This record gives sequence, structure tokens and C-alpha cells, in this order.
Amino acid sequence: MPQVITRETLAQWDERDPLAPFRARFRLPAGVIYLDGNSLGPLPVAAIERLQAVVTTEWGEDLIRSWNKNDWIGQPQRLGDKIGRLIGAAPGQVVAADSTSINLYKLLAAALQLRPDRHIIVSQKDNFPTDLYMAQGLAAQLGQGHSLRYADPNDVPASLRDDVAVMMLTHVNYRDAQMYDMAALTKAAHDCGALVIWDLAHSAGAVPVDLDAARVDFAVGCGYKFLNGGPGAPAFLYVAERYQELVQPVLSGWMGHAAPFDFDSDYAPAPGIKRMLCGTPPVLSMAALEVAVDLMLDADLATIREKSLRLTQAFFDLVEQECGDFGFVVTGPRELEKRGSQVSLAHPDGYPIMQALIARGVIGDFRAPDILRFGLTPLYLRYVDLWDAVAILKDIMTTGAWDVSQFKVRAAVT
Amino acid sequence: MPQVITRETLAQWDERDPLAPFRARFRLPAGVIYLDGNSLGPLPVAAIERLQAVVTTEWGEDLIRSWNKNDWIGQPQRLGDKIGRLIGAAPGQVVAADSTSINLYKLLAAALQLRPDRHIIVSQKDNFPTDLYMAQGLAAQLGQGHSLRYADPNDVPASLRDDVAVMMLTHVNYRDAQMYDMAALTKAAHDCGALVIWDLAHSAGAVPVDLDAARVDFAVGCGYKFLNGGPGAPAFLYVAERYQELVQPVLSGWMGHAAPFDFDSDYAPAPGIKRMLCGTPPVLSMAALEVAVDLMLDADLATIREKSLRLTQAFFDLVEQECGDFGFVVTGPRELEKRGSQVSLAHPDGYPIMQALIARGVIGDFRAPDILRFGLTPLYLRYVDLWDAVAILKDIMTTGAWDVSQFKVRAAVT
Repeated sequence: MPQVITRETLAQWDERDPLAPFRARFRLPAGVIYLDGNSLGPLPVAAIERLQAVVTTEWGEDLIRSWNKNDWIGQPQRLGDKIGRLIGAAPGQVVAADSTSINLYKLLAAALQLRPDRHIIVSQKDNFPTDLYMAQGLAAQLGQGHSLRYADPNDVPASLRDDVAVMMLTHVNYRDAQMYDMAALTKAAHDCGALVIWDLAHSAGAVPVDLDAARVDFAVGCGYKFLNGGPGAPAFLYVAERYQELVQPVLSGWMGHAAPFDFDSDYAPAPGIKRMLCGTPPVLSMAALEVAVDLMLDADLATIREKSLRLTQAFFDLVEQECGDFGFVVTGPRELEKRGSQVSLAHPDGYPIMQALIARGVIGDFRAPDILRFGLTPLYLRYVDLWDAVAILKDIMTTGAWDVSQFKVRAAVT
Repeated sequence: MPQVITRETLAQWDERDPLAPFRARFRLPAGVIYLDGNSLGPLPVAAIERLQAVVTTEWGEDLIRSWNKNDWIGQPQRLGDKIGRLIGAAPGQVVAADSTSINLYKLLAAALQLRPDRHIIVSQKDNFPTDLYMAQGLAAQLGQGHSLRYADPNDVPASLRDDVAVMMLTHVNYRDAQMYDMAALTKAAHDCGALVIWDLAHSAGAVPVDLDAARVDFAVGCGYKFLNGGPGAPAFLYVAERYQELVQPVLSGWMGHAAPFDFDSDYAPAPGIKRMLCGTPPVLSMAALEVAVDLMLDADLATIREKSLRLTQAFFDLVEQECGDFGFVVTGPRELEKRGSQVSLAHPDGYPIMQALIARGVIGDFRAPDILRFGLTPLYLRYVDLWDAVAILKDIMTTGAWDVSQFKVRAAVT
């Protein structure tokens, strides 16, 4: 029987939290407990000034000269290398560019090129939908009989046979936070001759990732969730060095050309990771992302993970202790080491309950059909925030302040 | 023999210029004559405040709620419809999204789907290179024998035969400003059963475009040149309503799904133009573009064209009058109605001369092998700016202040 948790205990944890000083580096709205940083991370204070400078000085004053003077031209690779440090990628293997969906397409096309005699893409049925959509679009386009095979989420290797070109998995499930063993599954895929693409949307900045050590071939990830890069921040992609010269980009735009300023009529891919770039990057959005990544690089990733797991356990315990009678079911594994940095609670009235929470300033999100999802983000979340959030949840459930009839079911953006 | 032009004459033109008040709506650096707005438009003053609000309020305060509260979710279509008003597209046919290169890929793939028995893409050898690169990448990827046919730039119809799937042309040539007759060439392509894709990179906001009237099938364009949307601003694409339901998007991301918040595992395209969206848009960069488009919508497009042509003729005349002895050759057609809104001068020492101009605050750009390129942008350029720019050019040429040996040839970004 666990000890009863009090707000005072949690306040003491906050006092001893080595990450506590990071909270002041974010602008968080008054009266809000923000548990949706896995959907859109909050604003780093430094981003305000940086964007002001990019707008008024780099764009306004330096104008076209900024491509060289302020190294806009080097931004996708510079920023990519920084992100690489958060995901165990040595320099020269990551670029920041485009959206996660576009980057997935680039990598899927590359993987299928490298395995021309195989036509199966293994994935999770419960993968984040856009990953599946991009694979479906590419398969239909190629018209060569490529198709998706949905793996049993608890036994992915069973679906790995010698017809598999690529295993495309999301590392941390967006819905129930289940985290796959990246190294083991990568090895299983390689053992059957397949390549791997890992989607790090809910991993980068949230959980330990070591792409190089796990011998991962390709990966993508999102800039605006745990990386706090701002709304619609550019995404990133990783190509292991050993494959870079073998990939013939299908989205072969000018930024990935070997000599983009020669204005040749014929495409020739740049050496290395640069060939995975396509068009001109959105410099303003890239600048915000870079500030956010710089902020995260100031933190120790192991300490982030430690706090994330402690937040998770505390949230489990508080929900049980304070809201044990209300029918919430924790989804995903209970073993902390198999989880990402979020907690989802299933409840038949999940939608109106989440709306009531949001109305009281506790911002999580809802995922159909019945999931209340809460992101646990160590850089700016306090342990007492969990107490306060669960207290409000308890109050809503006790007083019946959530009313099914008042709410039309409509989900927000992931 | 034309009358001698004086600075006083040009100052009088400025006094009577109906567009003169627009100059104050841009932040232009002191000591600079900016003739590179065809590469990166300058900063609209209103963008400073707008970005501040998007960052601190919409992102910082409203956070995830902004997708609905501040209609981030509707931004690609709302902004697309506004851009549509600048290019003769009725509502519901344009979205702002991704980069020009990515959008070209989407439309090329769509066009080839619609003409499965034809395998030729007609284009200009002197098209902007990324257009050709994207076509080459798609052709190689499909592996069905698609290839590019380069048309004689002065006789495109000669290359239109019954094997042509799509004619992909840039409306205004980035190098010599030659502008094609969009309606006539579209008709010629349709007469041979081909579809058309027009690249409006140097047209939108610069010259009259009427996509609907010309019966254009598809078009793309750039947000950061004449539209002044900021560095790497998102691009746009147009699909004529008659084709929207026939296009099966190959870049089939969640934003283009019929029910993106249902989290289905299977892609189903949204009705209409929305299906051409793919991943999450870079909201900060989109916001800057929207400010810039709103600004341009305050101006009268016919007045912009009128001033653009007058600027062009004045620049021709001034170069002849003041710099007639220095070996500059005007490129592209001399007939104003066949030109876009820029002037290029060929000179064997083009590169060092442009560097000397830039060092004196006259910012144009250089295009290999020998082109000095000057964008003429009616919203913020004064007639006297041309005088002052040509006076500096004359001074450089007269005093020999440009020194070939001092400069290594290196081009800037288009």
C-alpha cells in the first residue's frame, strides 16, 4: 500500500528538483496548468526576443544578405546537428526541414529504393495516422504492389518476414504512451533484411533516444511537441551516414542540390545529409525552433527522463488516491521504463470531462473515442501542478460539473 | 531620340505616384536602394506587431487552443483565398502550404495521374532549376519512362504533341524577365490534350495573372518574392475546381484528410482544395505571409502593373543615357508587355560590378554567368531610386571602383 501523497510532499520534491530553474525560461499563462506540451510546447521566453531580432534585423535590415551574413543557408544542417545531440545522432546525419509527413515520405521512398525486391511496409495500426497516410499515398503512387502490414503491437517481430522492405514504427505511441525497444526491434528488422524508420514525434526531448547506438537507418520527428519549437515548427529527419550516398532523393529540390547556386538544369544530389533538403525553409519558424532546441540542450537528458518517470508515477498514484472511484482506466503499460512522457486515462465521458478541465485551466487533450491525454514535461511542469490538476479533476467528478449534454464531441489538433 | 531624363522629372513622377503611400508600410534599411525584392521582399511594418502577437498571445497565452480560437486550422485556406484574389482564382482553389518545390511535386504527380498514357513533361531549359529538378526526381521515381522535353523558349507550341502529359512553364523567367502569354499557351497545351502547370514565382504580386480566365489547370507560386511574405515564407498552389475531385494526392498527409480529427487509419482525401494540404503548416511564417498579402490586397493591381512598366522603361532609358558606354546589354524582350517586373543587364564583369553596387547600398543580385538582376517593385520603390542607383552604377564604372581581381564569383540565393 503506497504512502498517502500530500501537496506538501510534492512541494518538497519541487524544491529539490534540479530542473526547477527551467520553468522560468518559458512563458506560461497565468491560471493554466499546461498538460498538453506533447501536442504544442509552450513559448520559450528567449524566442520572443530572437524572433524580434530575426524579423527586424535579419529580415528587415540585412534582407537578402542574411542568407550569408546570418547563415540562413546553413540553418537546416546547423539546427539538425543540434537536434542530433538530443537523439543520439552524430553530426551530419540530421536536418531540420519541412513537416514530419513530408520527411516520412522522403525516407519511405528512400527505403523502398534500397529494397526494390520487397513490397511490405510493416507498421502499427495504431500508429499516428499521418504516418500511415503517407505510406498509403506512396504505395498507391508507385503502383508496384507495395502495401502496409499491421503488426501486432505487442509482437512486432512476428510480422517481420523476408518480404518486408521497411519497418516504420512510432517509438512512443501518441495515444497510450507505450514505448518500443528501439534497439531490439531495429535488430529484429535488420535480421530479416528490412530497413527501419522510427518516428520520434513523441520521443525527441521526452525520452532517451540513441539512434546511432541502435543502428537505426532512418528517423523523423516533430519540432513543436516536446521540443517546444512553436506552432507548426519544422520537423527533422535522420539518415544514417552509411545510407546517405545511396539515397537518390525523390523530392529533389534546389536546397539539396550539389551546387545550388550554379543554376544547372540537371539535378545532382549534394553529398551527405544535405541532399535530403528540398525547398526553401521557413526561416522565421526555424529560428523559433532553434531557440527551443538550444534551451533543451542546456538541460541534462538523463535528469529529464528521471523527472518524467517520477511525474508519471506521481500522476498514477494521485489519480488512484484522489479519483480512484470515478472509473478512470490508465492506458498503456504500467512499467515506467516502457512508457513515454505522457499519461492517458480512458473514461466513457472522456470528452466532456476534458472540456470541463480545460474550462478550469487544466489543459490536456482528448483523443477519440474515450482518452483524456496529459503530457508530462519536466522542463516546466512542477510536481504540485499534478496535485492541483488532480484536485480539479476530483472536484469536477465529485460535483458533477461535467455534463455530457453540454458538449459536442470534437477533438483538438494532436 | 528620347528626352533627357533628369532626377527632377523622376521626383515629379514620385509626387504624382498613387502608390507612393505604400512605401511607408515597409521597413526599409537606411542607405539602401533595394532592387532585390524579386528574391526576398522587404519587411512590412505590420508584420512586426503581428508576429509579436502571434508569438506572445496566440502561442504564449492561448497555446493549443489557438487551433480553434485563432483559426490556425483555417489559415492555409483563408490565406490561399486571399492569394487567389491576386492571381485571378475564385475562392476554394488556392492553399498556402509547404515550399514551391514540394507543391510542384504534388501538382506534377497529379497531372501525370490524369494523363496516364502520356509521358512527356514540356518545360523550359531555362526554367528555374528547382522546377526541373522536381520533375526529374518524380520521373526517376515513377520509372515509367516519363521525361522532360525542353521547348524552344520562343516557340513552345512546337514541342506540344500528343505525347505531352503536362506543360510546366514559369510565367516570368527568373533570369531575363520574359513573360509568356499564359492564356495562349494554356490553350495550345489543351489543344494537344495536355494539362498545364504555371509557376508564378516571379508573377504573383508583380504582373497581372488571371488563372481562371486563362483556364489554367494547376499553378504554384512563391510567398517570399514579390508577395513580401518573409524569408522562406510558405508557397501556394492552385488546382482548378474541375480537377479537385479527380486528384488523388500522393503527399497524403493528415491536413488533407477528410476527417483529420477522427484519427482513422486509412487516408481519405478531403473534398476540394483542402486535400492538397499535407503536414502541419509553419504558423509563424504563415502569419507573416498573411500580413504581406493583406497589404498587397490594399493596392490596385492594375496600378501596380502600370508603375512597374514605367519603372522598367525608366530604368532602360537611364542605363542608356547614363551608362550607355559601358557595355551593358539589356536581356529579354524590349516590349514592355512581354516582361515581368525586373530588369537584367548582361556584362562580362557582372559579378564584381554587382558586388561594388551592393557595397554602395544598391542591392540587386547576380546570376551566373554574367547577369546583373534588378527587381522593380512598385509598392516601395521610387522613381528617384532608379536615378540614384544608376548614378552609383555610373560612378563605379567611371572610376573603375569595381575590380575583377578583388572578387571571387559566388552567387547569392535566388
